[in-house]
Amino acid sequence: MILTVTLNAALDVTYSVDRLTPHASHRVDATHARAGGKGVNVARVLATLGHPVTVTGLAGGDTGQLIRADLRTAGLTAGLGDELVTIAGESRRTVTVVSREDGDATVFNEAGPDVTAEEFAAFTARFAQLAGRASVVVLAGSLPPGLPEDAYGQLVSLARAAGAATVLDTSGPALLAALSAGPDLVKPNAAELAAVTGHPEVAAGAAELRALGARAVVVSSGPDGLQAITPHGSWRAAPPEHLAGNPTGAGDACVAGLAAGLATAAPWADTLREAVALSAAAVLRPAAGDFDQPTYERLRTTVAVTTTN
Amino acid sequence: MILTVTLNAALDVTYSVDRLTPHASHRVDATHARAGGKGVNVARVLATLGHPVTVTGLAGGDTGQLIRADLRTAGLTAGLGDELVTIAGESRRTVTVVSREDGDATVFNEAGPDVTAEEFAAFTARFAQLAGRASVVVLAGSLPPGLPEDAYGQLVSLARAAGAATVLDTSGPALLAALSAGPDLVKPNAAELAAVTGHPEVAAGAAELRALGARAVVVSSGPDGLQAITPHGSWRAAPPEHLAGNPTGAGDACVAGLAAGLATAAPWADTLREAVALSAAAVLRPAAGDFDQPTYERLRTTVAVTTTN
Repeated sequence: MILTVTLNAALDVTYSVDRLTPHASHRVDATHARAGGKGVNVARVLATLGHPVTVTGLAGGDTGQLIRADLRTAGLTAGLGDELVTIAGESRRTVTVVSREDGDATVFNEAGPDVTAEEFAAFTARFAQLAGRASVVVLAGSLPPGLPEDAYGQLVSLARAAGAATVLDTSGPALLAALSAGPDLVKPNAAELAAVTGHPEVAAGAAELRALGARAVVVSSGPDGLQAITPHGSWRAAPPEHLAGNPTGAGDACVAGLAAGLATAAPWADTLREAVALSAAAVLRPAAGDFDQPTYERLRTTVAVTTTN
Repeated sequence: MILTVTLNAALDVTYSVDRLTPHASHRVDATHARAGGKGVNVARVLATLGHPVTVTGLAGGDTGQLIRADLRTAGLTAGLGDELVTIAGESRRTVTVVSREDGDATVFNEAGPDVTAEEFAAFTARFAQLAGRASVVVLAGSLPPGLPEDAYGQLVSLARAAGAATVLDTSGPALLAALSAGPDLVKPNAAELAAVTGHPEVAAGAAELRALGARAVVVSSGPDGLQAITPHGSWRAAPPEHLAGNPTGAGDACVAGLAAGLATAAPWADTLREAVALSAAAVLRPAAGDFDQPTYERLRTTVAVTTTN
């Protein structure tokens, strides 16, 4: 079982407008809401691929109930288990405004509820149990207010003690503070890597994250694909074509591919090929967590993977 | 008592961002939510002015509960009564993104829940009772999906039968379909007037609305003030200065001033002076339904009112 953690679960609301005009009033013609947050999106992709997957994290209030109701619906169709832990605060919403004119998305992310120390302690106890049943734990997204900066570091340590491998997709101080716990894989994008290390160059930035404790580093560069620096070698993986569309779910699909590779002990080259194919196929779908199946099937055999050392 | 009707009550959510950049992701630093919809905003202004006011309309679902909870809070401080009627559908949200850089607001209005014929019939029965206790009924805002185009016309007729005067602030087909019922006052803005009549010129457009059944027409032209065409004469009222800020609540404050004038049988010139002063004072406050008290006190004696016939 792959366990995904979403400490700041969200109700992702999509507004459809003709076009977004700053300082104007817009009639929203279609509203769509579903459970989100990076860990939830990763879980959706994994479930679609056929992996047993469990969602945990923190959710609360009326919005938390809506998130759980949507996960129950997804679980009935795709075998995705809901093990979210309830908190007192109201879970956040995100609002994505999609322009029908050009398909572009403008995103507004609420910060999320304050989490108390007692609530995080209750979560870590539950997490340790769940991690004991997981082969891989995916920790993804921002930390809600109130959590310690090293929250992900604590969870990485607990997962390791429980015998699970860890994939971490976060940024800034939350990423830096987790490295000393030794996550098996971290996946910053190129901008996040440059921001936390100060190195504009991917190889130097990735080397620094490894020096600070990450076992493997996979850096995403949008349509240019991935660079992986691991204990077993370094690779570059690029899609055979550039696909235009919604980039918001591409990172989550990439993480799903990487987690699936760890769970099945696949060779790195195969894992990177899968991750690039899933990312590119996700760009074609408006909602994060979805991907275009025919594009995935076509690209997973045509992604170019080359060693870089 | 003044009764305000909000058939499409909303939870107005305000997002604060540094600046709005189309196609980017925004971290929302502050979130604020309160009951809204034009009739609710008008009621807030009237309550602040000291008028007994009752809010009715349609609200449903979790969002409806949040709207009513906020109205209870407002009622405790300002004597605003909640007589909203519950429907099965989920009430809408509006999202206003305010840029800290320039104070400008970008608004997204959800369409609102589907209302059944049975729900509207139950509402009209309750409305007839409430209108019997009102001196003035304010009908303001858009119609939710499912209501007949002449919904406001039906309510105007019921209010008249109950002995209450009516103020109607809506646009498009909902405005046109209500005119034959003979509302005492309609308040389109200049763009809405041109859209429904095809006349770019205010006097000609207002004359057409009166020919179709409206007793008096007050047309708002943003910072240029008001033009009133009534059975007792025609006037133009303009603020002595242009105030910059948030225009979203200015129309609602104007309607509150007009309704207060009808309720107290004030001379038209005084009513228009109040309406212009309230509109201008509302521009200075970020939330619709609020107005800047010192500006209102200063302007209500300095607004210029001139007869135009």
